Amino acid sequence: MMHSTEISIPDSPVTTTLDIRFAETDQMGVVHHSSYVIWFEVGRVAWMKAALMPYAEVADSGYNFAVTAIHASYRASCRFGDTVQIVTRLTKLRSRQIEFSYEVRHNTDQRVLATGSSEHICVDSAGKMTKIPQTIYDRLCAGAEQLAAIGRGVAKS
Amino acid sequence: MMHSTEISIPDSPVTTTLDIRFAETDQMGVVHHSSYVIWFEVGRVAWMKAALMPYAEVADSGYNFAVTAIHASYRASCRFGDTVQIVTRLTKLRSRQIEFSYEVRHNTDQRVLATGSSEHICVDSAGKMTKIPQTIYDRLCAGAEQLAAIGRGVAKS
Amino acid sequence: MMHSTEISIPDSPVTTTLDIRFAETDQMGVVHHSSYVIWFEVGRVAWMKAALMPYAEVADSGYNFAVTAIHASYRASCRFGDTVQIVTRLTKLRSRQIEFSYEVRHNTDQRVLATGSSEHICVDSAGKMTKIPQTIYDRLCAGAEQLAAIGRGVAKS
Amino acid sequence: MMHSTEISIPDSPVTTTLDIRFAETDQMGVVHHSSYVIWFEVGRVAWMKAALMPYAEVADSGYNFAVTAIHASYRASCRFGDTVQIVTRLTKLRSRQIEFSYEVRHNTDQRVLATGSSEHICVDSAGKMTKIPQTIYDRLCAGAEQLAAIGRGVAKS
Repeated sequence: MMHSTEISIPDSPVTTTLDIRFAETDQMGVVHHSSYVIWFEVGRVAWMKAALMPYAEVADSGYNFAVTAIHASYRASCRFGDTVQIVTRLTKLRSRQIEFSYEVRHNTDQRVLATGSSEHICVDSAGKMTKIPQTIYDRLCAGAEQLAAIGRGVAKS
Repeated sequence: MMHSTEISIPDSPVTTTLDIRFAETDQMGVVHHSSYVIWFEVGRVAWMKAALMPYAEVADSGYNFAVTAIHASYRASCRFGDTVQIVTRLTKLRSRQIEFSYEVRHNTDQRVLATGSSEHICVDSAGKMTKIPQTIYDRLCAGAEQLAAIGRGVAKS
Repeated sequence: MMHSTEISIPDSPVTTTLDIRFAETDQMGVVHHSSYVIWFEVGRVAWMKAALMPYAEVADSGYNFAVTAIHASYRASCRFGDTVQIVTRLTKLRSRQIEFSYEVRHNTDQRVLATGSSEHICVDSAGKMTKIPQTIYDRLCAGAEQLAAIGRGVAKS
Repeated sequence: MMHSTEISIPDSPVTTTLDIRFAETDQMGVVHHSSYVIWFEVGRVAWMKAALMPYAEVADSGYNFAVTAIHASYRASCRFGDTVQIVTRLTKLRSRQIEFSYEVRHNTDQRVLATGSSEHICVDSAGKMTKIPQTIYDRLCAGAEQLAAIGRGVAKS
């Protein structure tokens, strides 16, 4: 019974760099906490693109990775004029579940501003929970392997 | 040739009251200008609901009023803690075009904070421009008449 | 040593009703998960207003309840045209920490669409962590008591 | 009396490339019209950075370019998965007024998806209208000249 076994995912961080938008600030003079949740999404979209399984292709094929949970911890604020890095990792991949983790770092000194994670299920075009289609699952696995290999300096061109 | 004639629309303002959300502010300490564009949308959705042609029904029937233009003029700022009124009017209704106008007023003294307008075309579920379906068009006309009658104090229950 | 003792907070739910904004949807046809984070904020602002310690007053006095963590679990989606209730509770109040919990319910049948919580620290106008000013702390306590009394049907006018 | 004369601004377009965010879509399956207003802001922030008068410096010095008007015309929609270019120009610079214009183009074929403009006044830290400080004004002029020279291929390093 292999299908319920959780696979071991190689560490495969993908870093996205974002200039903070003025509209993302609030009257406290810092970035509003809800903006980080959108940055997490930008991060996982970038991860999937780097893993050669772009989310737009998942959506175009009639599936979506619906968000079932979001966790965010905020350690330090950031401001308009700052540039941040979103470091995204695929941390769980099961037949029906996906989890990503995130670190938001300040671009200048790499100090961690926030961490977080998101949990997802796969839904079909009717919004009904379903297994992740095998092709998508396999491409995510292969992408994580390839990204990890690049990280270890043994990427094949 | 009646179909290209612009009908005369009775003045039919609908007022929506909104408490400003903290997330709508920016680091200037006031509401970000893009929030007003979303308030305009809240206003026209409220207008259509009051006119008994809810936008959700338009969308559910496979049509959308795609935005082709937005104009906004900002006179005074508003802040978290303030309550605003969005006064919305249907200002143009043709076989293929719709226009709404908006006034954003401070709830306390009714002074105008911003004015604006939005122009729309009707698109079908494929995103293709089309005539406004006759039923929707007729219900919008009837709704405007009824709202104007209410405004004149002659509404029928 | 009383100051580190966590006070027992009476159950004091405050319900806020929101019409879903079209802008809050995404291409999946449902409300985007980040919108709930903003609804949580709307909920706690409403709670504080109901507790007679409006957040705008906290901010005007030079303090903010900075968000240190957000947790959200999504059970079912909701759509434009739906109305939701945000049920907010103050769940923790310490000298330096505040926690709120949230339930998002569908207005029609009260089924729970999402749950969540937010953790906060108090910061001064320089963004530095500080104790919650005693007046604010006391008004939050009194507000929770009064709201609980209202819930038990023994509210004084 | 030179100060009321409108200076002639050399054509100095700055192009910003953006991957569309999933959160920027709506239930029509395309980018929500309010997102373009935020992209305009991203464009003018990028223009000012390229002109060596970063907006963050303006804000840090206690001034803001408050938005007094926004105009946007939408010609074609764009989708998640698309990349867009925001081409921003400074089109007016007076002692008390600034205007930018924008073109949103599809990255693949450069077709224009939307055009727009924003009008601004200068406000001080109290939110009061004021003249643009001379240093900021001069740096904007110099920046526009330099950007135009770069565009003509005669930029000095």
